[in-house]
Amino acid sequence: MDEKIICNIKTLAIDMIHEAGSGHPGIVLGAAPILYTLYANHMHVSTNDPAWINRDRFVMSAGHGSALLYATLYMAGFDIHLEDLKNFRRYGFKTPGHPEVGVTPGVDVSTGPLGQGIATAVGLSLGEKMMKQRVNTKEITLVDHKVYVLCGDGDLMEGISYEAMSFAGSHHLDNLIVLYDSNGVSLDGTTEGVFSENIMERMKSIGWDYELVKDGENVRSIDKAITRAKNNKKPTLIEVKTVIGKGSYLEGKNSVHGKPLTEEDLKQLKSRLNVPQKEFYIDETLREAFRMKVAQRTNIAYTKWAESYRKCVQEETFLKQISFLFNPNIRCNFLDYDFQMDGDLKEATRSTNKKIMNTISSYIPFLIGGAADVASTTNAYLEKGGDVSFLNFKGRNIHFGIREHAMGAIANGLALSNFRVFASTFFCFSDYLKPAVRMSALMHLPVVYIFSHDSILVGQDGPTHQPIEQLAMFRSIPGVVIYRPCDANEIIGAWNTILNDNAHPSILILSRTEVPLLKTSDKRMVEKGGYVIRKEVQKLDATIVATGSEVSIALSLAELLYKEKNLDIRIVSMPSTTLFEEQPKEYREAVLGDTNHIFTLEAASCFGWDSYASDRNHRLGIATFGVSGTKDEVLKATHFDFASLKIQIEKEIIK
Amino acid sequence: MDEKIICNIKTLAIDMIHEAGSGHPGIVLGAAPILYTLYANHMHVSTNDPAWINRDRFVMSAGHGSALLYATLYMAGFDIHLEDLKNFRRYGFKTPGHPEVGVTPGVDVSTGPLGQGIATAVGLSLGEKMMKQRVNTKEITLVDHKVYVLCGDGDLMEGISYEAMSFAGSHHLDNLIVLYDSNGVSLDGTTEGVFSENIMERMKSIGWDYELVKDGENVRSIDKAITRAKNNKKPTLIEVKTVIGKGSYLEGKNSVHGKPLTEEDLKQLKSRLNVPQKEFYIDETLREAFRMKVAQRTNIAYTKWAESYRKCVQEETFLKQISFLFNPNIRCNFLDYDFQMDGDLKEATRSTNKKIMNTISSYIPFLIGGAADVASTTNAYLEKGGDVSFLNFKGRNIHFGIREHAMGAIANGLALSNFRVFASTFFCFSDYLKPAVRMSALMHLPVVYIFSHDSILVGQDGPTHQPIEQLAMFRSIPGVVIYRPCDANEIIGAWNTILNDNAHPSILILSRTEVPLLKTSDKRMVEKGGYVIRKEVQKLDATIVATGSEVSIALSLAELLYKEKNLDIRIVSMPSTTLFEEQPKEYREAVLGDTNHIFTLEAASCFGWDSYASDRNHRLGIATFGVSGTKDEVLKATHFDFASLKIQIEKEIIK
Repeated sequence: MDEKIICNIKTLAIDMIHEAGSGHPGIVLGAAPILYTLYANHMHVSTNDPAWINRDRFVMSAGHGSALLYATLYMAGFDIHLEDLKNFRRYGFKTPGHPEVGVTPGVDVSTGPLGQGIATAVGLSLGEKMMKQRVNTKEITLVDHKVYVLCGDGDLMEGISYEAMSFAGSHHLDNLIVLYDSNGVSLDGTTEGVFSENIMERMKSIGWDYELVKDGENVRSIDKAITRAKNNKKPTLIEVKTVIGKGSYLEGKNSVHGKPLTEEDLKQLKSRLNVPQKEFYIDETLREAFRMKVAQRTNIAYTKWAESYRKCVQEETFLKQISFLFNPNIRCNFLDYDFQMDGDLKEATRSTNKKIMNTISSYIPFLIGGAADVASTTNAYLEKGGDVSFLNFKGRNIHFGIREHAMGAIANGLALSNFRVFASTFFCFSDYLKPAVRMSALMHLPVVYIFSHDSILVGQDGPTHQPIEQLAMFRSIPGVVIYRPCDANEIIGAWNTILNDNAHPSILILSRTEVPLLKTSDKRMVEKGGYVIRKEVQKLDATIVATGSEVSIALSLAELLYKEKNLDIRIVSMPSTTLFEEQPKEYREAVLGDTNHIFTLEAASCFGWDSYASDRNHRLGIATFGVSGTKDEVLKATHFDFASLKIQIEKEIIK
Repeated sequence: MDEKIICNIKTLAIDMIHEAGSGHPGIVLGAAPILYTLYANHMHVSTNDPAWINRDRFVMSAGHGSALLYATLYMAGFDIHLEDLKNFRRYGFKTPGHPEVGVTPGVDVSTGPLGQGIATAVGLSLGEKMMKQRVNTKEITLVDHKVYVLCGDGDLMEGISYEAMSFAGSHHLDNLIVLYDSNGVSLDGTTEGVFSENIMERMKSIGWDYELVKDGENVRSIDKAITRAKNNKKPTLIEVKTVIGKGSYLEGKNSVHGKPLTEEDLKQLKSRLNVPQKEFYIDETLREAFRMKVAQRTNIAYTKWAESYRKCVQEETFLKQISFLFNPNIRCNFLDYDFQMDGDLKEATRSTNKKIMNTISSYIPFLIGGAADVASTTNAYLEKGGDVSFLNFKGRNIHFGIREHAMGAIANGLALSNFRVFASTFFCFSDYLKPAVRMSALMHLPVVYIFSHDSILVGQDGPTHQPIEQLAMFRSIPGVVIYRPCDANEIIGAWNTILNDNAHPSILILSRTEVPLLKTSDKRMVEKGGYVIRKEVQKLDATIVATGSEVSIALSLAELLYKEKNLDIRIVSMPSTTLFEEQPKEYREAVLGDTNHIFTLEAASCFGWDSYASDRNHRLGIATFGVSGTKDEVLKATHFDFASLKIQIEKEIIK
C-alpha cells in the first residue's frame, strides 16, 4: 500500500512538471518515500485547520521540490485541488514554482533560495521552545510539536545552514528533525570533490544527533529513523541515501535535476511504477487511504488539544497572556506615552533607542530578539528580559552568535511562530543578512531589524565598517519599511509605526554619533515619512531634505546660511523615505515646497535621492567608500564636512 | 629573547590603541605570541620586496587585530614608521583601523568583516595551486608558498568561513594553515552555549587536519604545530588556546575585546611585562634581533628564487607565458575581432555570452573562474578549459559548490593572485555574495561577476528566483561597474571594457530570455555606458532609456507608437549606467535629448532611475515582487506587459 501511494505521488508530481514544462523531477523521484513516510506516520497536522497553532511544521528547504510537496499534500487531504496540480507554476493557483506560505495550505515557510529553509526551521524550533515556556502550564499543554525539514546537498553547502545548525546544536533544539535527501548529485554534476564531507561527523561536532537510512526507498527504515529522532535529546539529521531521478532513464544523473522528463521517459517510468499511463492519474482508493491515515492519527491529537484550549478560554487572564499565539497583530499607541526624555538630551540614537525599546517591551511581552554578538554596542537588549539559552527558553534576549545571516532567517522563523522579533547588528554587516530580509518581505513578516553604526561617522574602524550603499540596498527592496530617525522623538514615532504594522519587515537605523533632541522633531509625523522640521522664515530659497544624524546638521546649516547670507531654507526631516513615498502627491509637494533648490543630505550614497534632489549637484552625499580616521578626517576625506556642505549649498543657490 | 620581543610587541600595540582612543586590546594580548612565532620562524617574506610574488601570504581574518599586526610587521622590519604606529587609525598613515591591502606593506588582504579573510585566504591557496601548475617546470620553481591565516571565534561562526573551509577540504589545499586564536570570548560574552562545537571534529569532518596548542603563550608549542602543519597533506587548523586580554585587569573578560585599556591597567600591564613605562617604548636591540631573524631566513629563499627568475627572463616564450604573475593588467581589443555572429541570432544573452567568453578566453589563458553549481545554466563555462579539482589544478573551471558567498571571496583571493577571475550564479542569489562584491570593490580587484536569470522573466520559478532590487543594490556600491547588455554586440563591448579595466569589479547581467541581435546596437559605444540606438525620425516626442532585454521591447514600442500615433521616440540603450554617469554632462544631455518625456524602461525596481526619468510616472519598472507563472502571466501581474507599457507611455506624452 505505502509503495503504491508513493508511486502515485511520483507520477502525479512528474505529470505536474511535464504539464508546466518546467520543474525538478530529480527530487520527486528520489525523495517521495521520505515525504510520504513523514506525512503518513508522523506529521501532526490538521487538514481541516492547516493553521493549527500546535501542528508539526514542515519546511521544504529544497524548495525546488515543490511538485513533490504539493502532490503529497494533495494526496494527504489538504485543500488543494486537481486544478491546482494541473496548473503547477501558473499564476493564480495554489501551486507556485517554489513553496509560498499563505498560498498553499500545509506550506509553513516560503522557500527556494537554498539554506534559508533550514535556518528558518531553526527559528520555528526555537519558537516552539520559547512558546512552550510561555503558554504551557502544569495542567495544560498548548504547545508541543516538532519541526521537520527536507533538505538536499545544496542546502547543506550553504553557509547559512551551517550557521543555523550550529546555533541549533548550541541551543539543544531537540524538536528539530532534518531529513537529508542525500543523493550526491547537484545541478552541475556529482558532489564528489566539491562537497566531500563526513556528514555524520560534521553534525555530531556541532551538537546534533545523526541517523542514517541506507535505502531511501525503504519506508520502514525511514519510519524507524524518524521515530528514533523524535526521542533524541538533540536536534537530529537523518541522512537518507537516495538516488536522484530514481526510475527515470536519467536516474543518478545531474541532468534529471531540473528539467522535465521526455515523453518517452515519462511513459516508461509510469509503466515501471505500475501506474496507468493516463495523465494526472489518481487512484482514489489510495488517496483516501492516505488521507485517512493522516486524519485518524492527527484527529486524536487535535481533539485533545482542542479540549485544552477550551479550558484556557475559560480563564480570561490566561487567555490574554497567550493571545499572541493566535493573533500576533499589535495595535498600540506609544505616541502619548511619557518616555521622560530630558530636553537637553544629547546622545547616540542607539542609546536612546535602548531606553525606548526597554520601555515598550515591558508592555509587549512577546517582543523578543537579539543580536549577532554585538548587543553590547548596538544596544538592542532588553534589560529585564533575561538571556535565552538551552537552560532558559523563558528569556527574551537571544544570542545569535556572529551569524548575521542565520539571525535573519531565525528571526523569520520566530515571526512565523507569532513572536514579534528584533534582530540587530552593525549596519555595514546587514549585507550578510540581506537575503533573509528579502524573505521577511516576501513572507510579510514584521521582523524589526535594528542596525546601528549607521554611517561613515563610525570613523576609525575604516571603510569595511562604514556603510555607504546599505540604505539604498534596503530602500530598493519591495515591502520593506526603512526608518532612520533623527532623535528620540522620531525613534518613538518609528516604534509606534513599526509595532502597528503587522505585515512588513522594518529596518531601524541608528547612529553611534551623538545627536541632540531637537525642539521641532515630531513623533506624530514619522508615520508620514517626512515633514517640515524647520519652516523658512519668509521666502523659500531652498529646501534641504535630511535623515537621521544629518537632520541636526541641516538645521545648523540653515541657521548659519540665514544669518550669514540671508538664505531662507526649509528643512524637511525624512525618517522614512518608504512611508513618504506612500503619501499623496499633494502632501509630498507641500512638504518639499515650491522651490528650484531641493537638496538632499545624507551621509551615504546618493543613489535613489534623485527623486527629490533638484539635480545631481543638489544631492549631498558620499560617492566613494570611507576611510579610517577620526570623525573630522573622515568627513573631510569624503567631502561631507560642514564647511564643504555649506559651500556647495551656497554655490548652487546663488549661481 | 622571544618572550621579550613579544612583550614589546604587546605594549607597542596597546600604546597604539591607547593613543588612538579606539581599537581591540583583547586579541593583541592574547595572540601576540602566535603572530610573533609565525613571522619569526616561518613566514617567507621579503621586507624589501613586500610584493614578492612567491612570498608566503598572511591574512589577518580577525581584522580587528590590526594593531597587533602592524606592531609585529614594524618590529619584523617592514617599511612602517613609528609615526604610523603613533597615528594608528588616522587618515593618511599606513595603519588604518582594519588592515587594507595596498596601504600597508606586508598586508596581503583587506579584512574586517568576519569570515571574509579566511575565505579570501582559501582563494589565495587555490591561486597558489593553480599558479604552480602553470608556471613551475621540472627545473624551475617560481611558485611554492604557504597561506597563513589568523582567525578568532567570530570568523569560525560565520557561514562564509564554513563554506570556504569545506571547499578547501574538498580541494585538498594543503598549503593553507589557519591559526585559530581560541579564547572562547566574543564581544557579548563567553561563547559557551552560543558556539559549542567540537572544533577538532568539525575540521576533520570537512577534510582538514587539526593541531592543538594548549598553551598559547608557549612559542615552542606554537612553532612545532606550525611545522607539523606545513607537512600535512590537508589544510590545517591549529587551535591555539589563548586568554583574551592576557595580563590586563580584564584578562579573560569580554569587556577587554574592543575598548582601550585604562591608564592604570596599561601601567600595571607594562610593569608585569617588564617593559619600561615610556609611551611607544621600543627596544631597538630586540627589534633588530627580530628583523635579522626574519631577514636571514628569508634572504636565502629570496635569493634562490631570484636566481630561478633570472633564468626565466632569458627564455622569452616562457616569460611571456608567466607574465601575468607579475602584471595581470590586460590591454586588449576585441572590438575588431570577428565573433561570427549570425545576423538573425535570437537567443538568451547567457548563451551568446558563452560563445563570446569562450572565444575571448582562448586569448587570455589566465582568465579562469566558475559557478556556484549553476554553470550548466548560467553558461559561464570554458569548454576547453578543463575542470579544477584536487587532481587537476591546471583546469580553468572551478566548481565552487552551492556556496555563493565563499565563491565571491575565493574569487577575490584568486584576483589577488593575479588571475583574472569570473564567478557566476543566478542574479537573485547574488544577494548571498554581496558582502564579497563589496570587498572586491574596496580592494580594487577586477573580478567579473556573471549573473544570469536577470529578471522576472524567469517566470515559473517565482518571486524567490526573480530579481527586482538587485540592480539597484549593485549600482549603489562605489567602484563597481554594472553591465546589462541588450545583445551580442553589447556583450562584446562589455567584455572589451571589462577586460581593459584592471581596477574595478564588474558585474555582467544576462538574460535567460531570448533577445534578437539588434541592427543598431553598437559594441563600440558600451564604454560610454549609453548611446542612441534608435534616433527619432524628425521631431523628438520622447526618449526611452532601456537596458538589457528591454531594449528590443523599447524599439518595438517606438516603432508601433510611431506607426499608430505618430509619436516620434528616441531609444537610448544603456548597458552600463555606471559608465554613462562618468561621461561629461554634454554627452549625457546629447544622448538623452531635449525633451520633457524621458522614460526609463527596465524590468526591475525603479529605484535609482529618477536621475533620468522626467518624473516618477516616466519610470517604467516593477514596484513589487514577481509571481510564479508563465512569462505572460508574470508580465501582466507586474504591469510590465507590452500593452500596459504602451498605454503608460502614450498617456504620459499625450496628457
